[in-house]
Amino acid sequence: MIFTKIKINDGYLKVSFNNPPINMYDVEFSKQLIQLMDEMEADKDLKVVVFESSNPDFFVAHVELLNVHNFPKGVGKTGLSISWPDIAKRLEQAPFVSIALIRGRARGLGSEFAQAFDMRFASKEKAIFAQVEIGIGSFPGGGGMERLHLLTGRARALEIILSGNDYDAETAASYGWVNRAISDSQLDAFVDDLAGRISGFDKSAITSIKEIMNSRARVPTNDEIMDTQVKFFASLQMPEARNRIKALFEKGLQQPGDLELNLGKKI
Amino acid sequence: MIFTKIKINDGYLKVSFNNPPINMYDVEFSKQLIQLMDEMEADKDLKVVVFESSNPDFFVAHVELLNVHNFPKGVGKTGLSISWPDIAKRLEQAPFVSIALIRGRARGLGSEFAQAFDMRFASKEKAIFAQVEIGIGSFPGGGGMERLHLLTGRARALEIILSGNDYDAETAASYGWVNRAISDSQLDAFVDDLAGRISGFDKSAITSIKEIMNSRARVPTNDEIMDTQVKFFASLQMPEARNRIKALFEKGLQQPGDLELNLGKKI
Amino acid sequence: MIFTKIKINDGYLKVSFNNPPINMYDVEFSKQLIQLMDEMEADKDLKVVVFESSNPDFFVAHVELLNVHNFPKGVGKTGLSISWPDIAKRLEQAPFVSIALIRGRARGLGSEFAQAFDMRFASKEKAIFAQVEIGIGSFPGGGGMERLHLLTGRARALEIILSGNDYDAETAASYGWVNRAISDSQLDAFVDDLAGRISGFDKSAITSIKEIMNSRARVPTNDEIMDTQVKFFASLQMPEARNRIKALFEKGLQQPGDLELNLGKKI
Repeated sequence: MIFTKIKINDGYLKVSFNNPPINMYDVEFSKQLIQLMDEMEADKDLKVVVFESSNPDFFVAHVELLNVHNFPKGVGKTGLSISWPDIAKRLEQAPFVSIALIRGRARGLGSEFAQAFDMRFASKEKAIFAQVEIGIGSFPGGGGMERLHLLTGRARALEIILSGNDYDAETAASYGWVNRAISDSQLDAFVDDLAGRISGFDKSAITSIKEIMNSRARVPTNDEIMDTQVKFFASLQMPEARNRIKALFEKGLQQPGDLELNLGKKI
Repeated sequence: MIFTKIKINDGYLKVSFNNPPINMYDVEFSKQLIQLMDEMEADKDLKVVVFESSNPDFFVAHVELLNVHNFPKGVGKTGLSISWPDIAKRLEQAPFVSIALIRGRARGLGSEFAQAFDMRFASKEKAIFAQVEIGIGSFPGGGGMERLHLLTGRARALEIILSGNDYDAETAASYGWVNRAISDSQLDAFVDDLAGRISGFDKSAITSIKEIMNSRARVPTNDEIMDTQVKFFASLQMPEARNRIKALFEKGLQQPGDLELNLGKKI
Repeated sequence: MIFTKIKINDGYLKVSFNNPPINMYDVEFSKQLIQLMDEMEADKDLKVVVFESSNPDFFVAHVELLNVHNFPKGVGKTGLSISWPDIAKRLEQAPFVSIALIRGRARGLGSEFAQAFDMRFASKEKAIFAQVEIGIGSFPGGGGMERLHLLTGRARALEIILSGNDYDAETAASYGWVNRAISDSQLDAFVDDLAGRISGFDKSAITSIKEIMNSRARVPTNDEIMDTQVKFFASLQMPEARNRIKALFEKGLQQPGDLELNLGKKI
């Protein structure tokens, strides 16, 4: 089991995930996440869910590239691909609140995974963010082209996506990529206090707030998400991309070690 | 008189307000604010107005809940309810600049009151912000669902509205809720210098800047404002909301004292 | 030659500019910039360009006001005036990345010049920003009414434009006006590292990122840009504006010296 559900109270669910060795978003991660999303939607008492990695070095490393075409196929209830975009849209539209508590590396789809939550809180000392796709001749295909600029504005989103570089939590917070960077020793207590508060409020108020906000604030359209996803998969077939991916695998991509720990600097 | 007008020069008006004991937005506050808004619009020389509370603990505590149905009725020149939404839209569309100088607590409608000004400057040591409505089973009904995300983005607006918690001025500034947090000892001089400068510029340029900006930057629509207001009043009739309001009154809501001083932490 | 091209590698161009004595955007600056823009677009290998001033006190002071009607006339390929708005739109739509490295003063059209780049990095100690147009009874006419609020939000854009005051780099960064304020001693290395990285990535990925981002994030429309430009030129004909401009010229406007060094404080 990649995802472990810990029920703090009837309205407050903690989800701890671990997909050794480096918490990649792979086929199994995708399948279990779909199952988990179904369960969360079916839980009518759920008010708030907190996702955290139990791997201290990786939140979500990035998408697993060798079996990218074996991901679950088809579209989900939102009309988007069930492999990930459908999950992201369901989190956005959910009647409960979703919070990402981030330690370790959140790069590529790992960063886009974090962006799909209603809020993000990051360890000042231990969180690292990057959109590394340009290092494989591509660009964020899982919502990053749509959601990152809504958080950071166009100029900073372009900087992040065009540099491919690693960003520490304080820079991420100053850019709006995360709500806040919090000292690692206080992060768990802060998020627990916030989720605990939310779980004590009325579900109907929580649901109304999310519904109204989703119709007031700009959220990505399905057309935008699908357009980018199609272009992303096409880009991976380009010779330049294939060569870059091959070279990175030779240097240790998707293996525990120096390359994955310092991927932003090494692409 | 809740509002005291101090004419600094022909173009620069300071409005100091005080509605003892805790500066609630009540029926009388609403009536006098409508009168004041009429007077400001009639003053063709007015270039900039600064609003400040003379109560050191409260900017505007929140709306007064016991007589909420006795507020002035009808729609104003903007097509919105004269009790407050019409005033907010008139400040936005005014040919003069409006500045909120914030010390003390600005919670609920007090925060929304501040959001309606063109700019906000807050005391680093003494300003406290919150959208506490979730504590009574509801959500911001006076523009907070529309204006806050335009200042802070969706993620931080959701955090603020779903937590109901108190925010200090520096966090508020880092989120965009206020333009800046300024040391209390320098706040008055900073705002006075800014308003003084503006009052020395040409009225036609000031008016053009506001007109053009209002057609370039996103501002809330009347439909959005009215939709939320209707849902807000409906939410107050729900049994959960009534129970929460009753419990808070028993603990000291709307009375000077510990609950109102620390409302964000105690809801 | 105002603009000196330094080819760092095939994909990375540095442009150093100097228009003595105070780097004004004048007729000659405009003509040479059009020529340079044509050359950059014709260079199919170009991936990233960095613009920097070689005048330590001025990035771009502001537009030259005495010969404002001698600027190149006509519309360019974007449908906008070739004197500047067309260049700004071409930088936005370019298949290469544009970066402004800012030391010294960037006021009025100098600030709007900076805003037209994909990213902005400013010297913490030496960059100064202002929209000073209100000091001549006007408002930003070269894109500032359209682009600044997209970077800073409406409230902070109004503060900047209505105050006309100088802003240091750290405040500019906290407002989103620039991506980051960086210690002067580290600024060159930071930007060089970023541009160097980008120049090592695939052109097709860079181009895709800019294309997709331009269709996801909000960018100014031609109608907005032209509407403001027309109003800007009309405002300069108003008696108040003429008087303000005349008074500033008598105090040393467009001359090296105290007024231009401290223009934000002295308007």
